Amino acid sequence: MNAKKAAADKAVELIQSGMTIGLGTGSTAYWAIHRIAERMNEEGLRIEAVSSSKQSEELANQLGIPIIPFSEVKSIDITIDGADEVDRDTNLIKGGGGALLREKIIASNSNRFVVIVDESKMVPTLGKFPLPIEIVPFATELTIRRLEQLGCRPVIRMADQATFITDNGNWIIDCHFDEISNPGELGERIKTIPGVVEHGLFVRMANTVVVGHADGTTTVQ
Amino acid sequence: MNAKKAAADKAVELIQSGMTIGLGTGSTAYWAIHRIAERMNEEGLRIEAVSSSKQSEELANQLGIPIIPFSEVKSIDITIDGADEVDRDTNLIKGGGGALLREKIIASNSNRFVVIVDESKMVPTLGKFPLPIEIVPFATELTIRRLEQLGCRPVIRMADQATFITDNGNWIIDCHFDEISNPGELGERIKTIPGVVEHGLFVRMANTVVVGHADGTTTVQ
Repeated sequence: MNAKKAAADKAVELIQSGMTIGLGTGSTAYWAIHRIAERMNEEGLRIEAVSSSKQSEELANQLGIPIIPFSEVKSIDITIDGADEVDRDTNLIKGGGGALLREKIIASNSNRFVVIVDESKMVPTLGKFPLPIEIVPFATELTIRRLEQLGCRPVIRMADQATFITDNGNWIIDCHFDEISNPGELGERIKTIPGVVEHGLFVRMANTVVVGHADGTTTVQ
Repeated sequence: MNAKKAAADKAVELIQSGMTIGLGTGSTAYWAIHRIAERMNEEGLRIEAVSSSKQSEELANQLGIPIIPFSEVKSIDITIDGADEVDRDTNLIKGGGGALLREKIIASNSNRFVVIVDESKMVPTLGKFPLPIEIVPFATELTIRRLEQLGCRPVIRMADQATFITDNGNWIIDCHFDEISNPGELGERIKTIPGVVEHGLFVRMANTVVVGHADGTTTVQ
């Protein structure tokens, strides 16, 4: 069994009828969205959802999961989403797919944030995966210089030989730190830089991490 | 003499040939840009400039002030800009004109940030002027609810009966706090909210405040 699917299936067990669910984005969240639709068809599970990307919203629409506008959201009960790295304190790096801002808005407004990953994403210390930072496309040279001064090698994310543009019209800078010993402090320093919209460090946000293994078993942290 | 013009003229005395200057935006910065052009014509002052708005860039172009791209900026020597409120510790509220993000990027990358105001902007405590906060136009209901929880009355800025859109494609929420007793702490709390791009509190950023009075005199703080 696929390790990502194993983690997704396990996390979707937490969902109960009547809940408002936050849908993540990416290859592991894909399996969670499929499993939610299965439970709706098989067991009559009734939920409403909000989506962190157009991609996941389209998938939900295809599978018959009702997406509601944010104006109708009282609170988000559970958000289920993947991550690029998870450390021992369940701090995360997210944003490999470029949707980190919307994912963080939804996760930070959820009563419970459940992270689903395959075991390859578990690391002792964050930072091997380059940290994605979303910046406004104005005076980017100045903002990138400030990021460099934090001790990383910043690389402007490209797509099809042009600058990658996020759903919010911004740029992503992939910052190679190699090792992030204090993600809380680094996140605060990054956020104070004018021109930074959001960064991919999710510190003390995950309530539960479900890790899927290649043999189809899961462990929960 | 106009109090704003008096403050602007005084601040422009600080500029020397060879400097790179950050141009602010608004009715007081307008006078500073005019005075820079005068000094270029009268004394042969030679400077290069970067601009915090399209509006000020156009004015500079009309007046013959050379604007350089950020890719050519090594460092900004002096930025001169207005403010909506200035407290006793020279902390500011800016953003009445909607350009707070670009103004903050430029000010924070300047060796010296000189604020020019008429005396009506000087206050013991910030907050009578509603604090402008720039947010991404996604899940705005959730972000605005978080701002409200900080103890303010948030009002979505409108223009011509539609939502006001910043130069960066975002919204401005004018947050009525009435009194901001600890601007440093409030600024940090606002910036940690996912969905907030920037806020109009400029804390410990101004190096010099030039206050213009109705009789044409100035005082410097």
